[in-house]
Amino acid sequence: MAVLEGDVLRALEGNLHDGPAAGRRLAQLADVRLLAPCQPGKIIAVGRNYAAHAAEHDAEVPAEPLIFLKPPSAVIGPGDQIILPRQSERVEHEAELAVVIGRRGRRIPRESSLEHVLGCTCGNDVTARDLQRSDGQWTRAKGFDTFCPLGPWIETDLDPQGLAVTGSVNGLVRQRGNSRQMVFDVATLVSYISSVMTLEAGDVILTGTPAGVGPLAAGDVVTVEVEGIGVLSNPVAAE
Amino acid sequence: MAVLEGDVLRALEGNLHDGPAAGRRLAQLADVRLLAPCQPGKIIAVGRNYAAHAAEHDAEVPAEPLIFLKPPSAVIGPGDQIILPRQSERVEHEAELAVVIGRRGRRIPRESSLEHVLGCTCGNDVTARDLQRSDGQWTRAKGFDTFCPLGPWIETDLDPQGLAVTGSVNGLVRQRGNSRQMVFDVATLVSYISSVMTLEAGDVILTGTPAGVGPLAAGDVVTVEVEGIGVLSNPVAAE
Repeated sequence: MAVLEGDVLRALEGNLHDGPAAGRRLAQLADVRLLAPCQPGKIIAVGRNYAAHAAEHDAEVPAEPLIFLKPPSAVIGPGDQIILPRQSERVEHEAELAVVIGRRGRRIPRESSLEHVLGCTCGNDVTARDLQRSDGQWTRAKGFDTFCPLGPWIETDLDPQGLAVTGSVNGLVRQRGNSRQMVFDVATLVSYISSVMTLEAGDVILTGTPAGVGPLAAGDVVTVEVEGIGVLSNPVAAE
Repeated sequence: MAVLEGDVLRALEGNLHDGPAAGRRLAQLADVRLLAPCQPGKIIAVGRNYAAHAAEHDAEVPAEPLIFLKPPSAVIGPGDQIILPRQSERVEHEAELAVVIGRRGRRIPRESSLEHVLGCTCGNDVTARDLQRSDGQWTRAKGFDTFCPLGPWIETDLDPQGLAVTGSVNGLVRQRGNSRQMVFDVATLVSYISSVMTLEAGDVILTGTPAGVGPLAAGDVVTVEVEGIGVLSNPVAAE
């Protein structure tokens, strides 16, 4: 693990989740291959958290956060291939702000919930739309290996609301939203989810996707950009 | 970790998932407190895998296994309290045969899928039935802390089909089924799930519940018994 300052990677000293410090210089960013910035024990995602995306699926905005899980086995890092499984005819991108938990908690009050957040990264809640519709439960559609790109790094000094969230395919922007349009903001999500399940350091919350989701084809490159964090790009390949 | 021979616990030597052996005597079973027998990276559960249970919810048996995830944070061991969360008015037991994966695999053929199974234990897919209905997605209803009792141990030498599965509350039997009544057997489930997500050693598959599920109240003791494995009992308490 390393701390990124500008384009220099420095050794991470101390505990990632509790006051890490930047140590000796390790490398230039351009010279390293980045892995997913965390290995979450669980990934909690939020459905229909942008009104415009709910509308494009003729779905109502829920009265409470609608949560579901993606398996840790789905995580890949920047530049890793998204593999289109043979079971699906339609796999779509969902650009999202991803929140990484830094401190364990259960029934965390909304007022102090951001103290449990280590930082934010970019996430792609890749979804087999046809299977999501046919199964009813979303686990299979959203749970294939490679269906959870995360990265490029965790930005630890950032207000999670008011950030532009953009999803592009082959350089063309398809999704353009802003995290201030979330139905339930990050502080509310952390509190709500922790009223159900204990959040652990390293857990990831995918906070929902803005309108403009669309299909991926082998050979595409899909990019999620979140303002103030960076760019997460992944090539798409057939199985 | 230990190997149980009769009622004697012996030190587990070698690798749990690859040819463990029984070493020196550690203790008598009656003198130890058992923890959950594994710490799964993921828990994949199967809905409506007994026709009689699907019928009691007016649901059809699915054409393919209907999978969903429970979070690792829900796991408790034998004797640990199931806590009824204040968000639900109706929490129910679901007695199940639980399968523990012993060897990593992806797209495992059905013919060899049992080679990836370490063994079997008892599981309780505790469910907030009211929230399951109102949310649509089952993650919250089935994901509360303490909603996944596992134990008492992993039986490694057992054919998973043809086992009586019993669920009791305060000593009265409510669920009485047999794993041969599964719509999709264990070999099929391991193969199917691994066609979506890589299975890792320690992952748990909850194979569905027979008919007879019912509500739990504070003060109850709920027991899952699977033939050839043992008994998993948990007291129930209000939050």
